[in-house]
Amino acid sequence: MRPSHLLRGLCLAAGLLLAPLTARAEDGYDLWLRYKPLPEAMRGEPRIVGQPPASGSPTLSLAYGELRRGLDGLNPDEPGLDAPSIRLVTPSQSDTIAAFKLSMEGLGGEGYLIRTVQGGRLTVIAANTDVGVLYGVFHYLRLMQTGASVERLDVRSAPKVRYRLLNHWDNLDRSVERGYSGQSIWDWWRLPDVKDPRYADYARANASIGINGAVLNNVNAKSDSLTAPYIAKAAALADTFRPYGIKVYLSARFSSPIEIGGLKTADPLDPAVRAFWKTKADEIYKAIPDFGGFLVKANSEGQPGPQDYGRTHADGANMLAQAVGPHGGIVMWRAFVYSHEQPDDRAKQGYSEFKPFDGEFAENVIVQVKNGAIDFQPREPFHPLFGAMPKTNLGMEFQITKEYLGFSTHLAYLGPMWEEVLKADTFSAGRGSTVARVVDGKLHGYSRTLMAGVANIGTDRNWSGSQFDQANWYAFGRLAWDPEASAEAIARDWAAMTFTPDKRFTGPAAAMMMGSREAVVDYMTPMGLHHLMGRSHHYGPGPWVAGGERADWTSVYYHKADKAGIGFDRTAKGSDAVGQYAPLAAATFSDLSKIDEKDLLWFHHLSWDYRTRSGRPLWDELVSRYSRGVRRVGEMRATWTSLAPYVDPERHGEVATYLAIQRREAQWWRDASVAYFQSINGLPLPKGEAPPPLTLEAYEAMTFPYAPGI
Amino acid sequence: MRPSHLLRGLCLAAGLLLAPLTARAEDGYDLWLRYKPLPEAMRGEPRIVGQPPASGSPTLSLAYGELRRGLDGLNPDEPGLDAPSIRLVTPSQSDTIAAFKLSMEGLGGEGYLIRTVQGGRLTVIAANTDVGVLYGVFHYLRLMQTGASVERLDVRSAPKVRYRLLNHWDNLDRSVERGYSGQSIWDWWRLPDVKDPRYADYARANASIGINGAVLNNVNAKSDSLTAPYIAKAAALADTFRPYGIKVYLSARFSSPIEIGGLKTADPLDPAVRAFWKTKADEIYKAIPDFGGFLVKANSEGQPGPQDYGRTHADGANMLAQAVGPHGGIVMWRAFVYSHEQPDDRAKQGYSEFKPFDGEFAENVIVQVKNGAIDFQPREPFHPLFGAMPKTNLGMEFQITKEYLGFSTHLAYLGPMWEEVLKADTFSAGRGSTVARVVDGKLHGYSRTLMAGVANIGTDRNWSGSQFDQANWYAFGRLAWDPEASAEAIARDWAAMTFTPDKRFTGPAAAMMMGSREAVVDYMTPMGLHHLMGRSHHYGPGPWVAGGERADWTSVYYHKADKAGIGFDRTAKGSDAVGQYAPLAAATFSDLSKIDEKDLLWFHHLSWDYRTRSGRPLWDELVSRYSRGVRRVGEMRATWTSLAPYVDPERHGEVATYLAIQRREAQWWRDASVAYFQSINGLPLPKGEAPPPLTLEAYEAMTFPYAPGI
Repeated sequence: MRPSHLLRGLCLAAGLLLAPLTARAEDGYDLWLRYKPLPEAMRGEPRIVGQPPASGSPTLSLAYGELRRGLDGLNPDEPGLDAPSIRLVTPSQSDTIAAFKLSMEGLGGEGYLIRTVQGGRLTVIAANTDVGVLYGVFHYLRLMQTGASVERLDVRSAPKVRYRLLNHWDNLDRSVERGYSGQSIWDWWRLPDVKDPRYADYARANASIGINGAVLNNVNAKSDSLTAPYIAKAAALADTFRPYGIKVYLSARFSSPIEIGGLKTADPLDPAVRAFWKTKADEIYKAIPDFGGFLVKANSEGQPGPQDYGRTHADGANMLAQAVGPHGGIVMWRAFVYSHEQPDDRAKQGYSEFKPFDGEFAENVIVQVKNGAIDFQPREPFHPLFGAMPKTNLGMEFQITKEYLGFSTHLAYLGPMWEEVLKADTFSAGRGSTVARVVDGKLHGYSRTLMAGVANIGTDRNWSGSQFDQANWYAFGRLAWDPEASAEAIARDWAAMTFTPDKRFTGPAAAMMMGSREAVVDYMTPMGLHHLMGRSHHYGPGPWVAGGERADWTSVYYHKADKAGIGFDRTAKGSDAVGQYAPLAAATFSDLSKIDEKDLLWFHHLSWDYRTRSGRPLWDELVSRYSRGVRRVGEMRATWTSLAPYVDPERHGEVATYLAIQRREAQWWRDASVAYFQSINGLPLPKGEAPPPLTLEAYEAMTFPYAPGI
Repeated sequence: MRPSHLLRGLCLAAGLLLAPLTARAEDGYDLWLRYKPLPEAMRGEPRIVGQPPASGSPTLSLAYGELRRGLDGLNPDEPGLDAPSIRLVTPSQSDTIAAFKLSMEGLGGEGYLIRTVQGGRLTVIAANTDVGVLYGVFHYLRLMQTGASVERLDVRSAPKVRYRLLNHWDNLDRSVERGYSGQSIWDWWRLPDVKDPRYADYARANASIGINGAVLNNVNAKSDSLTAPYIAKAAALADTFRPYGIKVYLSARFSSPIEIGGLKTADPLDPAVRAFWKTKADEIYKAIPDFGGFLVKANSEGQPGPQDYGRTHADGANMLAQAVGPHGGIVMWRAFVYSHEQPDDRAKQGYSEFKPFDGEFAENVIVQVKNGAIDFQPREPFHPLFGAMPKTNLGMEFQITKEYLGFSTHLAYLGPMWEEVLKADTFSAGRGSTVARVVDGKLHGYSRTLMAGVANIGTDRNWSGSQFDQANWYAFGRLAWDPEASAEAIARDWAAMTFTPDKRFTGPAAAMMMGSREAVVDYMTPMGLHHLMGRSHHYGPGPWVAGGERADWTSVYYHKADKAGIGFDRTAKGSDAVGQYAPLAAATFSDLSKIDEKDLLWFHHLSWDYRTRSGRPLWDELVSRYSRGVRRVGEMRATWTSLAPYVDPERHGEVATYLAIQRREAQWWRDASVAYFQSINGLPLPKGEAPPPLTLEAYEAMTFPYAPGI
């Protein structure tokens, strides 16, 4: 036994005695960056790391510190004097670059390479910038955390998307719209003086997955966020984030010139309005020199916008773009709009309003498009704008927070959902014109590329409301870096880093994750159904929701179920939403013999006895899918129970409790939905299907006045 | 060196290497129960603790666990085989009680004794109940934590007040009225399934200071809190709290029979209403067999109550008391009322409405009275009801959360404020009729005694929004146990337990704490001024607040400043509020030569040139006190800076940041107040006093739309 082993042995013994002092219950705060000691067999030889250069930037210090922290944690063995080493390299060390013939081309400002040289004795992590080095360090540590060998490395990686942003729908009173993880982590009241240590932990977690920007406030914005006190608060956050390569952005309320500028109008062509925004941008950049830019929700759900003055979205976006452009800022203009007049099909509206303006948006504008045309449903076909605006930078908006997928208490890994959309073929420039290639800019040669995720982060100790919802934050970052990455590989990485790299755990855990979203689709909205949730809070089943302010806020508008059939006819005979897609895509969606049944009722209204591919009539198939969803949650519970040996009791217990809630609520979704549709079609249940235990009236009577996130 | 010392030395060395793995930044979560190793000189001989009896209750297990945890932490030295031992004793161990002639009389159901016997070789902690033993364990550990000797102990302690309760003004949507520490720690949405580990930590902290009950929801209550789903949620909390000796109580909305009972009335004399409450109480007790009872805010600030039906407070309270009485429950009926008609002096209203009904309240009703007659101001004379209702159980309501004392960012230790009230002499049964003796029931022979504190607890990692606000939670518990305890001694204990028992720290820290509340009084509301804060949110100065819904919600109503003078004449020539006090108290308050100048303008309207005891005219004295408050905060900052060597950098830095905010805001209070009063009296500033840097209009124009706690 080496002396260091002896020492460890003694300390281990002492540690047992002292355990109550130091043991902290696992609460999930450490996310996927736990750096607990690897099993001996996975550790490999410990490595030596040099000191950071005295003249190094804060970012470089962070990179060294992270590497040291990770190595010490993952492999507490003491390195010998002749142990292999790791060196962090930036272009200032040109001798190292030359000596090992490192090719820095193509790495850009954020990419990195990791290469083992000198016969395995030295691994260099090199980049053109300090933040590139930091990203490389996180990559290196991820390899260790997932049990991969780090003996012989030759890795090159650079992000395919330039702007990889979280969108926080966080209000200034610290509530979070559609937030299920506690309050906003931005403690606006105590900022800028008080900088919660959590801000740096947040930035570090984001940097570890390549996220490089954060929109701090809700798209349903208040003008106050652009006043001097709030700019100072945002600047304090920017100062904390900067070393981690993260820029701050703000949602801008379009009517701010009236509310805080003392003007009578917010008309984007009014010179005083343009002057207001220019002055405001200058003021912000004075406080935050690397301010990222504005995100705008305009003329949607009651928000003000250029159409209030008879102007176009392009007029509005370009005016703001001109204000931030000289400082290098961008404007993200959301395509999620709906007019005051209710359309024949809300699914068509984004396309209808934006497509005509292709080519009219300034070069530093990105139109931010949700993955689907309605609103973050458990499943939606890809948004028809993707592929349809070759002359306009389009960015992707995903929702990480699970507004429509069971809040934080249902386990639903969103990787497969996002992958499904990214891999979808728009056919807009021939076969292979995937959404991913639109978003990464290659298909149309976009000058700016963006992937935005609506954050699921809050003050809950575990950040995301549940342990497994951390995986959605993680997967978003990884997919923003590489939209063609595999959701399953990401799930395995996350499971290994968050719990254990033991394959007896990661295999079943990743499989459970990969199936989880489909289970939610099954028990909530199978076969292309959508928008069937409770009114306003969006929690639980509400297929009966009808009436009220707008037809397109009801469920009946979307499922159109009657005695004869169910589904939204979006073919040419119906709303012709299908006509917004490229012909080849449209043909597939329109053709009942070709369409994937997962999208069936999104595009077609069919009779209840329509024969599905299973051979069963539509009604029977629907019910069987509802029941399958419930069953699958039961299987997830069994899987999780079997994984107890690999997980600390605290987190295992928490996940088990949540799965019990999910199982109960999956049953509720199935039962209430079946009860409702049966009340419409009067059909008997398929053989073997249990009748709902309550009356439809009982399901309809349930109210949730204090649901979170509204 | 003993082997155990050698081992520790080695581990210490190894620990340094491993520090990044295990070191958690100090965030305040551990409160005053940190159990960090004592300095060697304070440790004494390590002690042996036996195993808990296999048949012991959960409470007894907790007591053993806590003792073990505390001893291991405070004194990590390994006890020898012949080390002195500690034994926990309940009446079931009658042999031990007999052997050491332990007198268990007078300890009641919650008291304990701690005695060292066998020539110092054995210390027994004995009580009549398991929770008494738990309290004794916390007492023993507190002695160690504060550096007191535990070699020869002979301690007896029993609570002087029976119901020692936190009142949470927590809403079902998780917001907290007047909460400045994040959200409610009750995660109603996920309850009852998910039991946040924090619930047990909360219960443990309360048990450590003798708190034995918690009202879970806001006094401005929703009826939903009494529906089956919320009863189940409360029951889950009760299950967690029970082993810690803590009972759950609920605020009850008086109109619940209408809102959730389907009745047309909530008239307390209506048989259907009485049946509703009886059935509701039975339902609650079925789920929570040791449910504590109801807290009611009725006919106050818009809340419904018996007066809506022409009934009295006693009618309402007694009806509820009859519903919970058979189960052993109580009703706490708040005396904080105001009528729809605006009175000549709001300070008189509580007394006017309750005094006539003395003797009419049921035996299991406690009328809960705020410390002062207005509303938790930085300073108020004691409430005139104390001493005035000998035939009605009166309980004390203190506000731990600092609604009117700078929220969580101002350091104000409230111990001296509460001590001042408790030591105040009501003279109601002759000299020495202190408020403390009313509250502990001795003066009038009350059958039930109560001290309630409006909690300052939330989801902030440090529980209370700031490190030093933890001291107010702590002090409340200690004073509820013993209303005659010394606020300074409590401050010393808290400082020692929370930071270090080093007297070089605890002396200056406790002195700073003891002066802190008076500093706030000086810079906010000196010399008996009151209710001068910003409208609605109660943040920052607002002496100019006038108009609006009710005169008694304005500042001008209370200070009555004009060209000639300032102050509220409550003498016989004025509102005669003074007439509600016992003659001896009234005489002192009325007499300008006898009244303490701290209360001067509470009771008197005086000309600006009234000569104060300093010899200065009133205006000059006022301004000098405003400035003194600001100066004192500066001194607190200097003190804190000097204490850096004794405090971890994280908590020291946080407190320093908060003190900087407080210093700035103290100046703002002083400047805005001086600017306003100067605008009224037109007088020059005393020599040497700096003029406010901004115009009065500038101070008045400041708005805080997102202030917390509304």
